[in-house]
Amino acid sequence: MEILYVIKIGGQIIDDDALLSAFLSKFAAIKSKKILVHGGGKMATRLAEKLGIPQQLIDGRRITDVETLKVVTMVYAGYINKNIVAQLQSLHCNAAGISGADGNCILSHKREKAGIDYGYAGDIDLVNTDWLKQLLDTGIVPVVAPITHDGKNQLLNTNADTIAQEIAKALSSSFDVSLVYSFEKPGVLTNVEDENSVIKILHAGDYGELIKSGKIFAGMIPKLDNAFAAIRQGVRKVIIGKGEKLDQLITGNSGTTISHE
Amino acid sequence: MEILYVIKIGGQIIDDDALLSAFLSKFAAIKSKKILVHGGGKMATRLAEKLGIPQQLIDGRRITDVETLKVVTMVYAGYINKNIVAQLQSLHCNAAGISGADGNCILSHKREKAGIDYGYAGDIDLVNTDWLKQLLDTGIVPVVAPITHDGKNQLLNTNADTIAQEIAKALSSSFDVSLVYSFEKPGVLTNVEDENSVIKILHAGDYGELIKSGKIFAGMIPKLDNAFAAIRQGVRKVIIGKGEKLDQLITGNSGTTISHE
Repeated sequence: MEILYVIKIGGQIIDDDALLSAFLSKFAAIKSKKILVHGGGKMATRLAEKLGIPQQLIDGRRITDVETLKVVTMVYAGYINKNIVAQLQSLHCNAAGISGADGNCILSHKREKAGIDYGYAGDIDLVNTDWLKQLLDTGIVPVVAPITHDGKNQLLNTNADTIAQEIAKALSSSFDVSLVYSFEKPGVLTNVEDENSVIKILHAGDYGELIKSGKIFAGMIPKLDNAFAAIRQGVRKVIIGKGEKLDQLITGNSGTTISHE
Repeated sequence: MEILYVIKIGGQIIDDDALLSAFLSKFAAIKSKKILVHGGGKMATRLAEKLGIPQQLIDGRRITDVETLKVVTMVYAGYINKNIVAQLQSLHCNAAGISGADGNCILSHKREKAGIDYGYAGDIDLVNTDWLKQLLDTGIVPVVAPITHDGKNQLLNTNADTIAQEIAKALSSSFDVSLVYSFEKPGVLTNVEDENSVIKILHAGDYGELIKSGKIFAGMIPKLDNAFAAIRQGVRKVIIGKGEKLDQLITGNSGTTISHE
């Protein structure tokens, strides 16, 4: 099967013009098929503050009320998405920015948990791959903003890590998918204080052992659980590392590569 | 050739939820291939005011400084575009929102006029029809926000009427194109005070005569000149009328139809 990279960048790159520019140059240079999924960054929070929209957090999660949904739709699907697309186009990468509502490609439902109203936060039900495959087939590079919809005229704020993972899984029956998560650290570390302690390759078989031995930082465990879940569901490998080293991440010369074998 | 409707809606519909909803129901119901081009409305001005960004006008045209460009990119390509797409999707119309940067589909350059700096306003150079045609061929309904790019990493604020016209002209070698302009009046009037004085059909041959006789309101003349220019360049007809009567506009039962014959 043909190789496809699904690459997620987060706020730490988006908020830094030089890092973003370095990342996008490397992204544009990848010859294989590719999809970029971007997160939000601080611009939405700053805009909400300027507009006097109070930001509520419950258990560290932002509550997307109706005014905050407007802000994230503007910032994520508007400003960030179109600026990334324009920059990629200038690098001769034929990008097209989309949200999950466009082409009905990511359907979600409003998150409901007993007693907690997260507001307009979406949990993904389905990635419709037809249109994504058509875009890829015609040489388009999709750039996905973390806004989805429920099919009933409701946009929903959706976690970009989860979008990347669900797209990677959904396309793994059509492509040989590598899922790349950009991250503030150079990879999964055995010593959180030491950036040279990157685990280069992490197999499912060794993972349990590493957790038991306490060598993996607790904060990484949910991320890694998700990575292994993606691999069990067809993704070829998951790579975690610094986005600005994207060229080295995809050749296995930087970051942590997580695979089945 | 297959029929294609290129339909432009302006601020007076976008700013009114009930009108927009009525319009989109009728738009979704059109069975032929179709493209929606939307303008801005008051939200961008209101957001700029809230953010304390001074809005400059020269000869009635808004100057798009760098902060205003951010605002219009957020509002037009983010909020308005994605809300229209979500609403169309809920009506089972498979819409996808795009700007001119996406798929490199509308290239423009920064407007330059001796002595006047309009800021980041784009004048269109080229509509790349390949991707638009691919989208149409796969059953996607493009919803175009009035933001274009120069191919060198600069987004540009671009007049939605002009975008609609350029798309209509560029696709007229592949489709039998009708260009529909929604408008606050029921059509071109012979008496600007009387909404019942709509000219139903306006031919190029009669236009000069009507202008000479003073029967056409001066403010309409630039719009009509553009309409006739579109027709000379391959567009089958231009229809001007109220967006909320879209179903009647396209059957010729409302509005003014401008054609070559």
